[in-house]
Amino acid sequence: MADAQAPSAGAFQAREHGLPVRVYYEDTDFTGLVYHASYVRFFERGRSDFLRLAGADHTVMATLGTAFVVVRLEVDFRRAARIDDALLVATRIAAMRGPRLRFAQRIDRGGETICRASVDAACINAAGRARRPPSELIQALAPYLPLH
Amino acid sequence: MADAQAPSAGAFQAREHGLPVRVYYEDTDFTGLVYHASYVRFFERGRSDFLRLAGADHTVMATLGTAFVVVRLEVDFRRAARIDDALLVATRIAAMRGPRLRFAQRIDRGGETICRASVDAACINAAGRARRPPSELIQALAPYLPLH
Amino acid sequence: MADAQAPSAGAFQAREHGLPVRVYYEDTDFTGLVYHASYVRFFERGRSDFLRLAGADHTVMATLGTAFVVVRLEVDFRRAARIDDALLVATRIAAMRGPRLRFAQRIDRGGETICRASVDAACINAAGRARRPPSELIQALAPYLPLH
Amino acid sequence: MADAQAPSAGAFQAREHGLPVRVYYEDTDFTGLVYHASYVRFFERGRSDFLRLAGADHTVMATLGTAFVVVRLEVDFRRAARIDDALLVATRIAAMRGPRLRFAQRIDRGGETICRASVDAACINAAGRARRPPSELIQALAPYLPLH
Repeated sequence: MADAQAPSAGAFQAREHGLPVRVYYEDTDFTGLVYHASYVRFFERGRSDFLRLAGADHTVMATLGTAFVVVRLEVDFRRAARIDDALLVATRIAAMRGPRLRFAQRIDRGGETICRASVDAACINAAGRARRPPSELIQALAPYLPLH
Repeated sequence: MADAQAPSAGAFQAREHGLPVRVYYEDTDFTGLVYHASYVRFFERGRSDFLRLAGADHTVMATLGTAFVVVRLEVDFRRAARIDDALLVATRIAAMRGPRLRFAQRIDRGGETICRASVDAACINAAGRARRPPSELIQALAPYLPLH
Repeated sequence: MADAQAPSAGAFQAREHGLPVRVYYEDTDFTGLVYHASYVRFFERGRSDFLRLAGADHTVMATLGTAFVVVRLEVDFRRAARIDDALLVATRIAAMRGPRLRFAQRIDRGGETICRASVDAACINAAGRARRPPSELIQALAPYLPLH
Repeated sequence: MADAQAPSAGAFQAREHGLPVRVYYEDTDFTGLVYHASYVRFFERGRSDFLRLAGADHTVMATLGTAFVVVRLEVDFRRAARIDDALLVATRIAAMRGPRLRFAQRIDRGGETICRASVDAACINAAGRARRPPSELIQALAPYLPLH
């Protein structure tokens, strides 16, 4: 029963990562719908598990003396999610240039996209300065970069 | 790939429900560890998925004109969880009497219990008054009640 | 001591509203800095208290049969906030057209802007459909609309 | 206008600290009421500002090579708070012995207590081990200890 007892980190389909997310009490607000900042948390979970499956969880990143910080966020809210909803957070890399990585993300419910995001993250060194990702990280991400 | 795309609601082993939970950024604080109120959210996810698998998700409860509200909470914190940790929230019913349901819960990491909780919930009607659980709910919970 | 015991809803200076916000444990993450989605919560508090002081808190809005929902969010993160920081959330209306209201917001620390946001909210009726704000709401917001 | 632009850290009345807290969207859930774990966050804000006003904010604590961690939490929920509510978090020290500090806390709304908590915190050193609070910290807390 080991499998059933480990949290899912989602799965890749080609270059796109999908993470299933359940809506709990904590994600909703008094309007009866999901609180808008909860989607921002869901998108972060998607990016974290994308990186985890690519071999770059926080421990690995720390070993490489690097980390990602979010520098810009755009979110379009189209439909509202509700308590108990089963959502899917889809994440892919839209671009990588210098220290910057752009993620294109969306949240689907039953095959319909209810929310989209574009998230820019910057690679920083231990001193907090922007830097190009270390080569080990570039190699780990290579299979998921967009085709040109 | 349908299965991989649905969020896990955990599983029962006899009368105990287990829900795998991953620690993300949102769950930690500046001390580097998991924020103490995050465990309270994890316990709530465990109870929600316990009830979901028992056939009493929020939609069903609303149809029955009832809901649970937390009236008392006791939490003992023993070890600290960290970013990326894979946790297991274990939930069982410790007692049911009148409108009250007591849950005994714990959070394990790698087989070690790091946190325990005792949570009292009260069944209320649409007007917010305490009431005995409707018979459909009692039937749904019967397989998970403690033996006497 | 009544004053000291009421939560501050901030204050207007001309058309700009300022809300003081303290950084607590709950707002930080394991990197030692403020979690990026916490700024999104801070911006929402700023908009809520802007509307409260303009005479349009949630009770008033409900009486008018209307509410605002966030439909688009852009956030630029420039500097990181830390535990115990005293922040100021500045909020003004950048545009109002049809059912849409655009808020321009920023978060300052010690006079320096550390984060900026542009937030589009849509006015909806009780059925969830976009509608022009009711005239009482337009009148309440009139003093804070941008000059042309 | 400096005062109006600084977040309130509340105030002491004799040995009891009071912190005003507003209920925002983020604190509520789909039932229309405040989410139960939000009260746990409110209590933590109360303890943080108690310690801040007593001269022991996180920076001071870090300088002393110490920190507090929550080891046990008991919360009784009596009445439900709602969006826009103005709450007051009252905090006092109930006991101090060895490395442990016990806080007695409650949340009032309009003079009525809606929630009570007893929170045990342990003083730890930089290595995470329980220790007696350093003498500077004991001196800072002395005026707020219970009379015998």
